Amino acid sequence: MTASDFDSKSPAPAGESNADCHAASGPMEVGDEVRWKPASTGLEFPAVPFPSRRVFEVAGASLLRALVRRHHQRLLNTPIGHLFPKDPARFAAGVEKTADFIVEATGGPALFTANHGHTCMRSRHFPFTIDELAREIWLAQLLSAFDDVGFPDEVREEYWNWVESLSIRVINRRTMRAAPRRIPLAGAATELADALALQRRVAAVAV
Amino acid sequence: MTASDFDSKSPAPAGESNADCHAASGPMEVGDEVRWKPASTGLEFPAVPFPSRRVFEVAGASLLRALVRRHHQRLLNTPIGHLFPKDPARFAAGVEKTADFIVEATGGPALFTANHGHTCMRSRHFPFTIDELAREIWLAQLLSAFDDVGFPDEVREEYWNWVESLSIRVINRRTMRAAPRRIPLAGAATELADALALQRRVAAVAV
Repeated sequence: MTASDFDSKSPAPAGESNADCHAASGPMEVGDEVRWKPASTGLEFPAVPFPSRRVFEVAGASLLRALVRRHHQRLLNTPIGHLFPKDPARFAAGVEKTADFIVEATGGPALFTANHGHTCMRSRHFPFTIDELAREIWLAQLLSAFDDVGFPDEVREEYWNWVESLSIRVINRRTMRAAPRRIPLAGAATELADALALQRRVAAVAV
Repeated sequence: MTASDFDSKSPAPAGESNADCHAASGPMEVGDEVRWKPASTGLEFPAVPFPSRRVFEVAGASLLRALVRRHHQRLLNTPIGHLFPKDPARFAAGVEKTADFIVEATGGPALFTANHGHTCMRSRHFPFTIDELAREIWLAQLLSAFDDVGFPDEVREEYWNWVESLSIRVINRRTMRAAPRRIPLAGAATELADALALQRRVAAVAV
């Protein structure tokens, strides 16, 4: 009733999952009485399996911090790179703060809560526009960072299952009706191929 | 884990409703086993009372169209004015398309579906960033437009209850944990005072 009604040329949105939305339809039904459309769920946050201390015990603080650093170096060169500070010192400080969080959440020293209090994951991200594709780009780079730093195979799935589900709670801009995709570690590279292809196209334009 | 962790100076987000988020908290609990945080609802779409044909019968096509035109003239001078086309012809065409929708949805001729098919309300708005405050600005201007055009008192509430609830389904950018406010027609001016105050501040800056 506001903006998009103004442009009949706008393409059908991608990812449309509401099967009846683009179906042929007759006139609206209007009767003698008010007609209630029932309540529904706009976004469901799936359950999140927070890691056991096994992740910290197996990977160790150094490798966990290396993973976070490598992940964020990679993110800088993606379509969501603009979300991070351009100033190298501020960027590095942010990476170390995130590493503090990861170390504590996986069973290491409580460096994050001691300095920053409650994690407030969703609230902390509200100032930044994060849509479904941004989440997939973030996950795709984590997948590559696992390999880059040689993250131990035996705790990859536990780590992945945690952030794959937690990251859905950070999305604050919806661009499609479809629920954010679930992306198990097995097959993640294939599932995330679209996000990676977008990154390659952006990189090619930048060259 | 991405952007906002980088800036410890960022203010606490407005509208925070998760009482435990900013509470003092100890270290994260990490145990020998994976710890599941249960699923939850990120956004609930309340039921929508679509109008009866009484609205069209009482108000009539001319007044309904006048309401839509006046509403949109008002929206142009608000913080969401940028969502609409700058070109006057395109703007006018969009307003008439919206008026077709309103006329049909309230019991008049099926002008909208005949020309544009299914309404696809949420999907049509995905290209435009619409947050909780944008919805309130839209509602505040409708409230004023009711008075501007002399919309009949006896159908205001039925019309309002419809769009007040339907407009929640158009929000696609969340900026707070709190669910979008419910704003009954009785008391709406008071409830929407913040949205109106923002508009006045923006207008003052523009002078």
